Amino acid sequence: MFRTLRRMAVGLLLAMAVAGPAHADDGYRLWLGSAGGNASVTVEGNSPTLILAADELRRALPANTPPIRLARVKDAGLGNEGYAVRRSGSTLVINGQTDVAVLYGAFALIRHVRSGGDPAQASLRSTPRVALRLLNHWDNLDGSVERGYAGQSLWDWWTLPDYRDPRYTDYARANASIGVNGTVLNNVNAKAESLSAPYIAKAAALADVFRPWGIRVYLSARFSAPIELGGLKTADPRDPAVAAWWQAKADEIYRAIPDFGGFLVKANSEGQPGPRDYGASHADGANMLAAAVKPHGGVILWRAFVYADSDPTDRAKQAYAEFQPLDGQFASNVIVQVKNGPIDFQPREPVHPLFGAMPRTRLAAEFQITKEYLGFATHLAYLGPLFAEALDTPTGHVTQGNEAGQTVADTLTAVSGVSNIGRDRDWTGSTFNQANWYAFGRLAWDPTLPAQAIAREWAAQTFGPDARVIDTASAMMMRSREAVVDYTGAFGLAHLFSSDHHYGPGPWIDDLKRPEWNPVYYHRADRNGIGFDRTRTGSNAIAQYAPAIAARLARPETTPPELLLWFHHLPWEWRMADGRTLWEALARRYDRGVAEVMAMRRDWATLKGRVDPERWAKADTYLAIQTREAKWWRDSSLAYWTSLNGLPLPQGMAAPEHDLAWYKAQHFTHVPGAP
Amino acid sequence: MFRTLRRMAVGLLLAMAVAGPAHADDGYRLWLGSAGGNASVTVEGNSPTLILAADELRRALPANTPPIRLARVKDAGLGNEGYAVRRSGSTLVINGQTDVAVLYGAFALIRHVRSGGDPAQASLRSTPRVALRLLNHWDNLDGSVERGYAGQSLWDWWTLPDYRDPRYTDYARANASIGVNGTVLNNVNAKAESLSAPYIAKAAALADVFRPWGIRVYLSARFSAPIELGGLKTADPRDPAVAAWWQAKADEIYRAIPDFGGFLVKANSEGQPGPRDYGASHADGANMLAAAVKPHGGVILWRAFVYADSDPTDRAKQAYAEFQPLDGQFASNVIVQVKNGPIDFQPREPVHPLFGAMPRTRLAAEFQITKEYLGFATHLAYLGPLFAEALDTPTGHVTQGNEAGQTVADTLTAVSGVSNIGRDRDWTGSTFNQANWYAFGRLAWDPTLPAQAIAREWAAQTFGPDARVIDTASAMMMRSREAVVDYTGAFGLAHLFSSDHHYGPGPWIDDLKRPEWNPVYYHRADRNGIGFDRTRTGSNAIAQYAPAIAARLARPETTPPELLLWFHHLPWEWRMADGRTLWEALARRYDRGVAEVMAMRRDWATLKGRVDPERWAKADTYLAIQTREAKWWRDSSLAYWTSLNGLPLPQGMAAPEHDLAWYKAQHFTHVPGAP
Repeated sequence: MFRTLRRMAVGLLLAMAVAGPAHADDGYRLWLGSAGGNASVTVEGNSPTLILAADELRRALPANTPPIRLARVKDAGLGNEGYAVRRSGSTLVINGQTDVAVLYGAFALIRHVRSGGDPAQASLRSTPRVALRLLNHWDNLDGSVERGYAGQSLWDWWTLPDYRDPRYTDYARANASIGVNGTVLNNVNAKAESLSAPYIAKAAALADVFRPWGIRVYLSARFSAPIELGGLKTADPRDPAVAAWWQAKADEIYRAIPDFGGFLVKANSEGQPGPRDYGASHADGANMLAAAVKPHGGVILWRAFVYADSDPTDRAKQAYAEFQPLDGQFASNVIVQVKNGPIDFQPREPVHPLFGAMPRTRLAAEFQITKEYLGFATHLAYLGPLFAEALDTPTGHVTQGNEAGQTVADTLTAVSGVSNIGRDRDWTGSTFNQANWYAFGRLAWDPTLPAQAIAREWAAQTFGPDARVIDTASAMMMRSREAVVDYTGAFGLAHLFSSDHHYGPGPWIDDLKRPEWNPVYYHRADRNGIGFDRTRTGSNAIAQYAPAIAARLARPETTPPELLLWFHHLPWEWRMADGRTLWEALARRYDRGVAEVMAMRRDWATLKGRVDPERWAKADTYLAIQTREAKWWRDSSLAYWTSLNGLPLPQGMAAPEHDLAWYKAQHFTHVPGAP
Repeated sequence: MFRTLRRMAVGLLLAMAVAGPAHADDGYRLWLGSAGGNASVTVEGNSPTLILAADELRRALPANTPPIRLARVKDAGLGNEGYAVRRSGSTLVINGQTDVAVLYGAFALIRHVRSGGDPAQASLRSTPRVALRLLNHWDNLDGSVERGYAGQSLWDWWTLPDYRDPRYTDYARANASIGVNGTVLNNVNAKAESLSAPYIAKAAALADVFRPWGIRVYLSARFSAPIELGGLKTADPRDPAVAAWWQAKADEIYRAIPDFGGFLVKANSEGQPGPRDYGASHADGANMLAAAVKPHGGVILWRAFVYADSDPTDRAKQAYAEFQPLDGQFASNVIVQVKNGPIDFQPREPVHPLFGAMPRTRLAAEFQITKEYLGFATHLAYLGPLFAEALDTPTGHVTQGNEAGQTVADTLTAVSGVSNIGRDRDWTGSTFNQANWYAFGRLAWDPTLPAQAIAREWAAQTFGPDARVIDTASAMMMRSREAVVDYTGAFGLAHLFSSDHHYGPGPWIDDLKRPEWNPVYYHRADRNGIGFDRTRTGSNAIAQYAPAIAARLARPETTPPELLLWFHHLPWEWRMADGRTLWEALARRYDRGVAEVMAMRRDWATLKGRVDPERWAKADTYLAIQTREAKWWRDSSLAYWTSLNGLPLPQGMAAPEHDLAWYKAQHFTHVPGAP
């Protein structure tokens, strides 16, 4: 039967190539591929989740796969979500202690086979290292997406709860396939309205769709909702009426969504209301909310992303300064959600000093999957290395049972990824952006996976088994993030982006209201040198790290070169390890970044005809855009730095295409994702 | 070869039904169906348009179709766009004087076959009755669409001109298939920026994609652009510097888009700038722009939709009062674009009195395909009958060569349809909304086509050859618009919609700034009666119609009952022709509207399993929404009218579900399409 169908499918593909529409693949299917299998799968009982798992296996795997049996078993080592896939006689058995664990096992087997593994030899066993693996959607109720570059919000609030777009199911399925088990539907810059009865009903409809796929719904909560929705005079977390309002609101939500995950809160950050408005602490605010959801098993994700416009100290220090002293004061169902770096999702940052510094507090790492600072949807920047680099970073702390030293991943109860998903047909604005969603899920499940292995398995599932495509695409991906670092500013330079929309270069910007909104705040360059002194002679931000780490960061010679200017202000003539001056090394990195993008485009050109024409052409066009914009970054940055340091460009480097005034005069309107 | 391929395709479809994704058809293909044919087609030369035509035929028609030959011929009777399809020996010949005419012929043959016609017997000959058949997109540069209910703008301005989304081609193809030959890309509430160099380049990329499909690009122009873009102090059309700026701008556009169609202008209307700001007339403004595009063969579409906040007369009279006296003053390449009715795209209006009243002026009729006043995307309202009703209406004028009397269609050089297209996967927010795009194109080509015939050919192409589906769907469509009239307010009531967003009922609204923005302005109901007296005892708007028409409208007894309250203020006890009081007749119409929607839903239920599950389920859900909202309209309207007239509901009618205060308290946020 399968062979016949496969022949038919091949025949039809042939027919499509002759007579069909020009675009063979619009990217909608993601890494999940097309239906075509007919594997034999048995499942006991009528669990909706197990039936979905069986459907997935039947759809994906050929009839010559050994018969597959799905079964829940007792196996304490697997926990709630771990799975085991093993051969038992002539049968492949997929086990887990829960239905969703079996579903994860099914997707693991499919991934194994579609990445080239032999199903008959499959022996897979895995449990997630992080309990909560969440997407954070910065989606507004009006359909816009803050920092979204893939079209409108996936949630059509207007037709919800009536219409359940099949795409909601496809979204849940894709997330389940990579182990994501929760999603925060709305922007952290939240409207109170998202907690009103009509919107609870809409969220409940989505939760119903997501539930069989093991995905819980969370909502961002506006801290002042008791005022705006409840008519109270205050949102003071210590006011019993406020706590009662939240308790009633939580009860209302749980009546509609029994497995509601909880609230994500951005409080006292960038203008959002919070407990500090009432002289209460972040712990006071978080714990009050935690009490409201605790009877229902919910959690509070409380963001540590705070910096005060009245605080003259280094912005990089402020979250630690405010949160670390609260260690031990948070309720057990509060998770403090910390951005991966101390500033804001730059192409490269050191890890946040809070990781490892709050041993009595549950922590989440927040990554940005959407490429606010890495070229929007149009640049190719595979973030697997960025995520893995942060997760693998030693905190410098040694904990009981972890004498080898703790990594950031070891500190985590949850991982949140700010979604890059929108209503664009290919979900994420480009095929390669899909890899960032994929890598996030895979690393949230297992932070020890190598980014390259993830790139290869993604490429195999996305483009098919052609080894040259897998080799070339994954190699492009692996060099891509470093290329962005190079052309936007290497050696730990950060936040040199044009204002508000963060599209393109703006290292010269110095006129924004708050000092730490200005790129000049971060690079501190002048005639003599460049970089932010965060040692004892400067802001001493290094003191927030564990002593062993801080000691290495204290001196430029022992600081990792890729973070040199994050921690040190150095003369332009500073000698790098290879003997070049800092200026020459920095300038050449810009050139290297551009060269890498050009090389990626050349590499992609070799795959023409091996990748379907629609996805090939779009990526090729986007690489052309990236090439142009990488040059723009390089040339404008060099024009600016030379205007400060008066130094000539290193030998052999071409002068910027335009003068600095030209670059400064560039202005853009209708930039996507701007808040 | 074909038979083998067809067997394979059927086999794969079978496999999909067993193992494939749940949604078989997401509506993207529109009425164009799927590829599957392999007809033999020969084409001479290498015209891109003829090659496209041949591809369409090959893709759509089976191999057992007689061989098809495409050829340009001299046949003056066909004009520039007419086609002839005829049998010549064993061959089917598709002729036209131009490439695009042959393309239209190809689509005509496909339509003929896919509507059940025998290709071997095809004998088709048609020329368009209206020269310019245009979509007007009210799309903003930020991606929002004014009065759009199908997602964001199709134009991704951010990635243009680099990335040419294959969807742009599919858009052009769909339009070509129904004879649309031009598209205005941006909102009539225009930004000057749409005429800046970057946006001209973006529009040029779209024009390149559309050109082989016979579709020209037009742009809405902001009249004050010489000030905003050009730095001039004035936009006075009589100022030579202003004229020179426009001339240079037109030259710049034509360098990028040699076949640019021209400008659409909304001037001195709802706050837009215009020549009246300088004491110049609409003719002065339009002619100045016309001179700029005339050397390049362009036209100016100048909208007649004006009403002044300082004018105390009947809003329905103002466009006529301002434009009719200018007849004869407009340049030959100016087309005055007149909305189909005198107010604003209501579910039913009389035709605009300007049709037929400006014999020395080129006119366009402007229809609204997007359902601003007919339930947004979620209500089923087939607009074929609305378009046809307006086009077929006699103007009352007798012109040379048309002694039988002129219809609105006879007066037209152009027809514009305000697009209902967005980035939603199904283009228009629902399957049935696709029929309104389709019907617009078909009627723009031939205004004499019966709306029902169009509904049937659309249904056959959209759902396939199942006669029961075609019968049922087209019957639902044909009753749908009248249902909307009934539940929103029958007998010529108009503009009773909630403010700004026009979602839902608001007949009680009386507090908006401008009197003519308030529903009470239009219905004028009180304890004694209802309706707008537009006879000599009232605003005397009827005097703007030709005498024969005006005479009939002067008395309620000779006024078409469906327009009774548009032209007359009558007591609630007025006796209708059937002996019922006006109040009873009106109330029962609300009930009938609801009943019709419920009947449509029951009819659709009978097609379950005959229509693919995805499209079936979405339409079913939308009919459930429409049922709920039709009841809301009925109940809130009845509650309001009874609050005024104190009359009991007719016997057997149920009381409104809520009291009037409840209906008045309904407020909605994030309503799609709101400006």
